[in-house]
Amino acid sequence: MKKYIQDNEPRFLEELFSVMRIPSVSSDPAHKADMPRCAETLAALLVNAGADSAEVYPTKGHPVVFGSKTIDKSLPTILIYGHYDVQPVDPIELWKSDPFEPEVRDGAIWGRGANDDKGQTFMHIKAFEYLASRGELRHNLKFIFEGEEEIGSPSLAEWVENHREMLACDIILVSDTTMISEKVPSINCGMRGLSYLEIVVKGPDKDLHSGHYGGAVANPINVLCDILSSLIDKDGRITVKGFYDDVVELSAEDRAMLSRAPFDLEEYKSSIGICGVKGEKGYTTMERQTIRPSLDVNGIWGGFTGEGAKTVIPTEAHAKVSMRLVPNQLSSKISKLFIDHIRSIAPDYVKVEVFEHHGGDGFLIPISSKAYQAAERAMGEVYGIRPVPSRGGGSIPILAEMQQILGADPLLMGFGLERDCIHSPNESYLLDQFRKGIESIILFYRYF
Amino acid sequence: MKKYIQDNEPRFLEELFSVMRIPSVSSDPAHKADMPRCAETLAALLVNAGADSAEVYPTKGHPVVFGSKTIDKSLPTILIYGHYDVQPVDPIELWKSDPFEPEVRDGAIWGRGANDDKGQTFMHIKAFEYLASRGELRHNLKFIFEGEEEIGSPSLAEWVENHREMLACDIILVSDTTMISEKVPSINCGMRGLSYLEIVVKGPDKDLHSGHYGGAVANPINVLCDILSSLIDKDGRITVKGFYDDVVELSAEDRAMLSRAPFDLEEYKSSIGICGVKGEKGYTTMERQTIRPSLDVNGIWGGFTGEGAKTVIPTEAHAKVSMRLVPNQLSSKISKLFIDHIRSIAPDYVKVEVFEHHGGDGFLIPISSKAYQAAERAMGEVYGIRPVPSRGGGSIPILAEMQQILGADPLLMGFGLERDCIHSPNESYLLDQFRKGIESIILFYRYF
Repeated sequence: MKKYIQDNEPRFLEELFSVMRIPSVSSDPAHKADMPRCAETLAALLVNAGADSAEVYPTKGHPVVFGSKTIDKSLPTILIYGHYDVQPVDPIELWKSDPFEPEVRDGAIWGRGANDDKGQTFMHIKAFEYLASRGELRHNLKFIFEGEEEIGSPSLAEWVENHREMLACDIILVSDTTMISEKVPSINCGMRGLSYLEIVVKGPDKDLHSGHYGGAVANPINVLCDILSSLIDKDGRITVKGFYDDVVELSAEDRAMLSRAPFDLEEYKSSIGICGVKGEKGYTTMERQTIRPSLDVNGIWGGFTGEGAKTVIPTEAHAKVSMRLVPNQLSSKISKLFIDHIRSIAPDYVKVEVFEHHGGDGFLIPISSKAYQAAERAMGEVYGIRPVPSRGGGSIPILAEMQQILGADPLLMGFGLERDCIHSPNESYLLDQFRKGIESIILFYRYF
Repeated sequence: MKKYIQDNEPRFLEELFSVMRIPSVSSDPAHKADMPRCAETLAALLVNAGADSAEVYPTKGHPVVFGSKTIDKSLPTILIYGHYDVQPVDPIELWKSDPFEPEVRDGAIWGRGANDDKGQTFMHIKAFEYLASRGELRHNLKFIFEGEEEIGSPSLAEWVENHREMLACDIILVSDTTMISEKVPSINCGMRGLSYLEIVVKGPDKDLHSGHYGGAVANPINVLCDILSSLIDKDGRITVKGFYDDVVELSAEDRAMLSRAPFDLEEYKSSIGICGVKGEKGYTTMERQTIRPSLDVNGIWGGFTGEGAKTVIPTEAHAKVSMRLVPNQLSSKISKLFIDHIRSIAPDYVKVEVFEHHGGDGFLIPISSKAYQAAERAMGEVYGIRPVPSRGGGSIPILAEMQQILGADPLLMGFGLERDCIHSPNESYLLDQFRKGIESIILFYRYF
């Protein structure tokens, strides 16, 4: 297995690079045509790897790739989910190499999508290729690669609903997350949900001179800052009315189990270059970013943002705000609470608009499940250490929906590392993780 | 006089347009070469109007135009100050016509600089031309037009200091402000000062995924909003420590005199399209924007500001903040207080930087002065109504400095109107104000 991966690595990388070179940025209308192009490339790779068939299906948004290999209908079926869309690349000037001209450097693959999720998805195609080429498959495999994960999968749920039979499976296998570190493999047994909204504060109907009007007219930026600042209290708790109503407090036992994962605060701080941590009172850093909900302003803009100085009271100010939710908090409910809350605190001397971008629920998979156990054994063998269960802070909203529609639990075997900068400039993916990921997936099939 | 202005108007406009077509945006390095080009154009216009000489002088920044006409050294000398630089034009898409291709439409001149300050400066050249052509000048005139007013005149004070003798004068005459309305001429007898600073909040050394880190890491945008929101309390008072120490409370008598200026709150609100006013408790809207200091966020940016959604905790967030100051508040002191205050409230889990862009002091001119009285009589005759004294909310920081260096008071005869949108898209200047401005300046010379 190791030899096959080693011998074929140059070809593997060239194939992966052909996918990464396509700038499939789902949020940017300028890249619309790149989406089906990327989907077709992946479908061809699936067929070459041994799939009975692989097709690109239209959706209301960007297309979906579906491929399958049937061995014996009486055997269990594993549905592999991945996504071929990527995050935007701005600020582009911070990239050390072209985000869409991947290269290998310092033992890692560099480029947008190296990890998230082209690199991780590609490992599944190669694990499949290995087993198929040797006739060692003992499960039916189905692959679904979507093109809208980074924008919240707006079209996939409906498409899955309409192809429920075609997608029928026993387990959903996903590699789109990180493990704790190269030395501490971990398996995600739950992820947070998401509500992503935007607030617009509108003041005067034209930009005003702040000298003439300053002091007498509400400045939309100041008002927006007041609103945003009021959303988290001094104890780090979110003030949106009703926000915590559905949050289930973890038992002391559960918290103890999760705290098995090693954590070094100084290392954590230095890995992201911060002077100190900040968060909800009464919870550890690891808990704050996994089992507790959070609220972040992901973007803000208004007024004069160029070089130098302009004395303006702008007509508008904008903010993008997202909340991470824990299982049992429904995204639709939280988004509504947020909208109601913002409207209720909006002062009457400005107009405040608030609307939802997208959202999704969190989910959990039992540690006692056959799938979790198989993954634990596979990764334990490859890494030489028993993986720890972890809870992911990020969201893959569509997985909760697929879980509900298909009646199959998602298992998250992620091989990314914090150092990969997946939503930032200079995204990378360690070659060693790429190799071990392929090995772990192959072994997972052996033990599942 | 009226006939001369009327007969020559097509030529006047063509000359003014030749100045307005030059995109002399002082804050934008891309327009560096346009600055001397604009200065040369104005120098030539001065000579054509009858100046003994007019030259473009280099400074450490953009050049200065200086021209003069000496009649008799024993006569009083009037220094006319204006500026040929203009504000940036963004958002460019909101302009109904090209900002740098001026046109006359609906009785007004449209384009960047139509009023501020190319249009108003140009009136002085034409008033001078009229008097010079008829041999009616009874004062020595000096003209100084700078190219850095919109960026806080960083080079002019030193240049004035070095040319103190050349600039010696009895009064500084300026048209760079507004009057209350077409029906209520007013003369500014004081202006606010300015402190303009920028705050940068720095968090993690790379953009982070808000799913993985949200809740555990301080988000620079949230922190910036907290800081900005804390700067004004619920009574609309600025919380910067020591901020009000030097503010002189106006007497009830002075407040009554200033309140003579007519003011209609509904008209005010509808003129700028706001639902309500907001400001310091205990003061009227007109007081809030003239005799009271204020604080505005003029620009804010951070994180993802493109279309769609990106779940990021950004490395940095920025804000441009300006404070309008009243006479007796020193800009240098306030800027220092602001910097100290921000540093004192900056939380230790982020890095907070704060630096000054520019600033300037406010100033006052006595209503009893000969210059004010002459302006009152001149404008009273042209408008048929006795002008009211007013206090300007805006700042022309360099005027306080020139007052100190040259020992001459500035008199602000401004002919702009609120409707002119001087720092916004679709800047304009009413032709009627343009004409009456020239007339008023000519009469001012007669009565001074």
